Amino acid sequence: MSGKIFPTAQDAENAFYEALERCDLEGMMAVWAEDEEVVCVHPAGSRISGQDQVRESWAKIFAGGPRARVRTEQQVAISGMMLAVHSVFEVFTLPGKPETQPAPAIATNVYLRTAAGWRMIVHHASPAPAQAQAAARESGPKILH
Amino acid sequence: MSGKIFPTAQDAENAFYEALERCDLEGMMAVWAEDEEVVCVHPAGSRISGQDQVRESWAKIFAGGPRARVRTEQQVAISGMMLAVHSVFEVFTLPGKPETQPAPAIATNVYLRTAAGWRMIVHHASPAPAQAQAAARESGPKILH
Repeated sequence: MSGKIFPTAQDAENAFYEALERCDLEGMMAVWAEDEEVVCVHPAGSRISGQDQVRESWAKIFAGGPRARVRTEQQVAISGMMLAVHSVFEVFTLPGKPETQPAPAIATNVYLRTAAGWRMIVHHASPAPAQAQAAARESGPKILH
Repeated sequence: MSGKIFPTAQDAENAFYEALERCDLEGMMAVWAEDEEVVCVHPAGSRISGQDQVRESWAKIFAGGPRARVRTEQQVAISGMMLAVHSVFEVFTLPGKPETQPAPAIATNVYLRTAAGWRMIVHHASPAPAQAQAAARESGPKILH
């Protein structure tokens, strides 16, 4: 599908959020493992399994084109030899519209070390309640292991 | 904290849902890794980090005592040497009240192999939208790796 190699899970995560911000479908799918049982849960959405359904879901999300900037905050990273798990707050901002900021999300991202480098295998995002937003902005990245 | 040893991630998951169903706080906390940076997201909740806050959140949830039965469905399991990730639907039922069933949740559970067996290190649950409920009931467990 794609020749991109991500040497670390963090490289895959960076590419994921870059593709999300740019609404770049090919860039997004290059991050995902070529596995039929990848799992994706968009905020307030159901569980989506399989490459085709995951691609379709991102195509719908990206249809309107880029609007929001996205950055991750307060990362907790757990790393094994084959799997890495990152818990992050996804903070969205609309350039030029400080009064209408989208709600942040909480995401659990799981990366698998494949023959073609690290790839995303699970993305589970859910809306962060209002009180979480301040907390997300208070502290920097954390590394667990 | 607890002398319980879970030889597999699945053993830890079974104990997690047994404790959840029984509102057994000590049983629940025996499943969690003794790590300050464990991460827990309850459905529609914010991210909770650290043993003390995770314990406190379960104590609140368990305060009313056992009510619902819980089972998991449609498991996707990804296993490494040190980490295991299970994606499941959590299906709740209120005995004797078939007309008022709680909404299911989608959970991403991450287990870490510690010196004291497998322990939960991340639990991220979010409400499953209505259309997910039928899908969750359609199929049995799936093993990914």
